[in-house]
Amino acid sequence: MDKINQALPRQSGDMAARLKAQILAGVKDDLVAVEAELAKHLHPQFDRVAMVAGHILFSGGKRLRPLLMILSARLCGYRGDHDAGYATAFEYLHAATLLHDDLVDGGTLRRGKPAAHTVYGNETAVLTGDFLLARALAVAATTGNLDIVRTIVDITEQMSQGEIDQLDKKGSLAITEAEYLEIIRCKTAVLFQGACRVGALIADADPAALEGLSKYGYHLGMAFQMTDDLLDYTADVEILGKKTGADLKEGKLTLPVIYALSRADKPDRLRMETIISDQQFSAGDFKTLIQLLQQYGGIAYTWRRAASNISRAKDALSVFPAGPTRETLLAVAEYALVRKQ
Amino acid sequence: MDKINQALPRQSGDMAARLKAQILAGVKDDLVAVEAELAKHLHPQFDRVAMVAGHILFSGGKRLRPLLMILSARLCGYRGDHDAGYATAFEYLHAATLLHDDLVDGGTLRRGKPAAHTVYGNETAVLTGDFLLARALAVAATTGNLDIVRTIVDITEQMSQGEIDQLDKKGSLAITEAEYLEIIRCKTAVLFQGACRVGALIADADPAALEGLSKYGYHLGMAFQMTDDLLDYTADVEILGKKTGADLKEGKLTLPVIYALSRADKPDRLRMETIISDQQFSAGDFKTLIQLLQQYGGIAYTWRRAASNISRAKDALSVFPAGPTRETLLAVAEYALVRKQ
Repeated sequence: MDKINQALPRQSGDMAARLKAQILAGVKDDLVAVEAELAKHLHPQFDRVAMVAGHILFSGGKRLRPLLMILSARLCGYRGDHDAGYATAFEYLHAATLLHDDLVDGGTLRRGKPAAHTVYGNETAVLTGDFLLARALAVAATTGNLDIVRTIVDITEQMSQGEIDQLDKKGSLAITEAEYLEIIRCKTAVLFQGACRVGALIADADPAALEGLSKYGYHLGMAFQMTDDLLDYTADVEILGKKTGADLKEGKLTLPVIYALSRADKPDRLRMETIISDQQFSAGDFKTLIQLLQQYGGIAYTWRRAASNISRAKDALSVFPAGPTRETLLAVAEYALVRKQ
Repeated sequence: MDKINQALPRQSGDMAARLKAQILAGVKDDLVAVEAELAKHLHPQFDRVAMVAGHILFSGGKRLRPLLMILSARLCGYRGDHDAGYATAFEYLHAATLLHDDLVDGGTLRRGKPAAHTVYGNETAVLTGDFLLARALAVAATTGNLDIVRTIVDITEQMSQGEIDQLDKKGSLAITEAEYLEIIRCKTAVLFQGACRVGALIADADPAALEGLSKYGYHLGMAFQMTDDLLDYTADVEILGKKTGADLKEGKLTLPVIYALSRADKPDRLRMETIISDQQFSAGDFKTLIQLLQQYGGIAYTWRRAASNISRAKDALSVFPAGPTRETLLAVAEYALVRKQ
């Protein structure tokens, strides 16, 4: 774990590109199928929906969540042809959440493009989010499997609770690591976990396989959100497609900050708090803050926690025999740690 | 039908009070059970949700939708004790829609209280709406009945489409009666219809009963929205709990206006269009508009269409033997036509 962590700053660029190529090779046909299915259910009679849903759905998303469902199903022996269709539920759900969250957070950029609510207005963003959520549930219902429906309903409920929880804690300097972990579990990990779980359910997998994939998805999701939160302090804006420091400007304290605040001496804690509380902080202030995050180990600690989750995600796949699908899922886990966007 | 229509302006006050008393007598215990169930699922750990959801849920709603489900189940012979619990799905769904719609429409008053988004902010209104929608679906999933899940998912999808459709046509003077009917079907009738249908499904009703209740709910919902739209031109503000003329100020053309515009001569049509297009119209302008709606039969026509739907709703119950539950549902239908709020 420590070895991975040490290696990251130097090698992660090459590693990210290599892993990405490996993953894409493993899901090439699936990606094509998912894109086709995603477009299929945007009823053309609603021009506005097609446009706004298209704005968020077809703006360079990685399709990670539907691919996780498809790969999980395949790993459990699924050989039918409904996987891409069912998998759209997870991208619709994800897109619905992004639409509402960007509005709630006042986010202005998403994947390098203006956020939908800034282009089409809050009204349209709210209603299109509702439409995509309803679409996701309609897809769930078409599986005819109550366990799948329950899983997807449970995801929507937990995600909504996580978002509310996050809103409640907005701007609070007192948020703890435990509270942070619960928020990212709800807002990110349950969707990853649910996608993997539904993949296993579609394949009618045995309990050990279901449990293994569920664990894999959970830990992958936790790590994914941690690296996402890290990118807000470490990324290249051009590659990330949104501004760094955005979380702080929205009043969101994430693990790098929470940890550093807990370790800093009183004067440095005060310096950090002053910068954080001023949501109009300058570029210079932001640099100072990043230096303090590094000095007090906030960046390194978050990497370690992410790496530890990835380690556990990979371990969870050991119940499956080796093979190309397991390799792809392992590559996804490694990629989550080294990605640049 | 004409008789009902003629009678309305004079007698509807007394009739509304009498019908309301009759309905309340028929659902007294159910109302208590529904209130208890509604409060039960607002997890206390989310103070903000409990507060905002409570703001919309416990502000004098009529609980019409859950009661329709309960009465429908009873009419089909249901004697279990899950009905009030399941019925909450329809109130949660309704409340979720109100939260998002008031935000989308810029509505400021709801049931005589400031709309939630004006009190708690758009962010909270969006997320609480999402939470209530997820709650509704979670309740649906607990029934363990895929037909019920599908019905409720279908409702959410159609309601969302109806709202988007309405937003698309906002401010348009060219909206037709057919387009209006499709919007109110999606935004109101499908929920009424779905509540009645789910009641029948819970009772494992035969196809004729399912069809009868489904029709009843559909026509009741259509009439209910028409009288709602009429109240915007005819109601006493104190009783209605929101401002009259609100629909027009939000750019929503409803049947009284659509019909009158289609019948008016050119100069009067122009007068109406001028008032409608000016969303800051004065009280005097609004009076003029109402006179024109009356002159060109927009008010009377809408009454007749509502009364015709109520007639069909009542007819649809003829497949059931007479009895107290059928009487209550018939009273609900009559009340929908004469209600003052």
